[in-house]
Amino acid sequence: MTRLIRVIGIGAGHPDQVTVEAIDALRSVDFFVTADKGDDDPLLAARHALLARHLDVVPRVVAVRDPERDRTPGDYGRAVVDWHDARAEAYERVLLEHEGDVGFLVWGDPAFYDSTIRVVEKVLARGAVEAEWDVVPGISSLQMLAARHRIVLHDIGQPIVVTTGRRLHEARDAGADNILVMLSSTLDLEGFEDWDIWWGANLGTADERLVSGRVVEVAVDVLAARIDVKARVGWIMDAYLLRKRAVLTPPPA
Amino acid sequence: MTRLIRVIGIGAGHPDQVTVEAIDALRSVDFFVTADKGDDDPLLAARHALLARHLDVVPRVVAVRDPERDRTPGDYGRAVVDWHDARAEAYERVLLEHEGDVGFLVWGDPAFYDSTIRVVEKVLARGAVEAEWDVVPGISSLQMLAARHRIVLHDIGQPIVVTTGRRLHEARDAGADNILVMLSSTLDLEGFEDWDIWWGANLGTADERLVSGRVVEVAVDVLAARIDVKARVGWIMDAYLLRKRAVLTPPPA
Repeated sequence: MTRLIRVIGIGAGHPDQVTVEAIDALRSVDFFVTADKGDDDPLLAARHALLARHLDVVPRVVAVRDPERDRTPGDYGRAVVDWHDARAEAYERVLLEHEGDVGFLVWGDPAFYDSTIRVVEKVLARGAVEAEWDVVPGISSLQMLAARHRIVLHDIGQPIVVTTGRRLHEARDAGADNILVMLSSTLDLEGFEDWDIWWGANLGTADERLVSGRVVEVAVDVLAARIDVKARVGWIMDAYLLRKRAVLTPPPA
Repeated sequence: MTRLIRVIGIGAGHPDQVTVEAIDALRSVDFFVTADKGDDDPLLAARHALLARHLDVVPRVVAVRDPERDRTPGDYGRAVVDWHDARAEAYERVLLEHEGDVGFLVWGDPAFYDSTIRVVEKVLARGAVEAEWDVVPGISSLQMLAARHRIVLHDIGQPIVVTTGRRLHEARDAGADNILVMLSSTLDLEGFEDWDIWWGANLGTADERLVSGRVVEVAVDVLAARIDVKARVGWIMDAYLLRKRAVLTPPPA
């Protein structure tokens, strides 16, 4: 029988923000593979809590040391592809060394700004590992952001642009007026002073922080919260929605 | 003690695509309110299956007859707002007639193209009902689309525009090259012949259908599947991702 590779979305941080389908998937595999970010991986404890809560027996977790990644490359796309190749080689080795069905644990949803699906495709394309594979969706931090602020992510019938901090200004320059940002290692709100922001950090965890309001009024609170969370918790993951205020056209005189 | 209104995302259709947090929320309330689309509401059976699966005792479900809605208005935004007002009045009546904590069941995630959050805000703004309220996220059909096709919803580091069928062509005209469409009562792929599409209908249900490929090659399959699903199941809900093919620049001569 062909072995099964399962890419499992495990939510944004809270052990109960995982679906019944994901729990069944977690229980079905023989071992897990996770990307090891080093000894101080901030999500290690959260992952342990999630597995301990939903599995009677936690199978072996193989932590694969993440390949080094060029964080300041001239060619961002190329650097990411190289890094995916290195990850695929590392995962291939683990899959050849261990038998049985494997679960790849993905924070949030594998559909948004995560490399696992692409890396699994590369592993299979290399040809040494034979397997069927499937994907189980999970609650993403952008959904947690909306739920905690109790908002819909768009005005009635209007679009949403989902992008990264790196491309935020590009999205606005192209005319977007409702922008959801994930993966923002830095925060640059210049030019958004008049917009509304709904910001959240470490969503779903005990250290969750929320700020909302007009950017010019709350930007300092966001920046202070970022510094504070980082200092107290040791890591920060944030997401935010920026929406241009509707311009009220005065009635004709 | 103040009563609690809970807006609960219950996923895209499969009873196991609901989070542990959502199940806890379902179990915590005294009754449910749902929008009654009429006797032939296609999701009635799916909702019943979901509640029966996760609750030992299913509390009362109050189905509120959906107000009539102008489907061909001159002013779309205004028509929706009027319809939200009518819904808020109907929900207010139910909340005044029934005591205890209430759960509003929302297919998918309340954060995307759903009116429940706006209507609950309107109910509370009217002042007759006093309550605390919270929102529990759920797996959305766009996440199911990605999981079933085993794709990431964007190219590496690139943005996603999430929009409605109504505004699809507007998004492309504004330069978007990766567009995720929800709420498409009709399907008009004119001008997208050269793009790739990942399409899905009735995702998560037993009647799920998937089609993917270059639009010019698979558009007829999508249209045939839409007609077939509608005829066999009685209803169709679909979502799709359209991505412009990368133009390969020939090397300089």
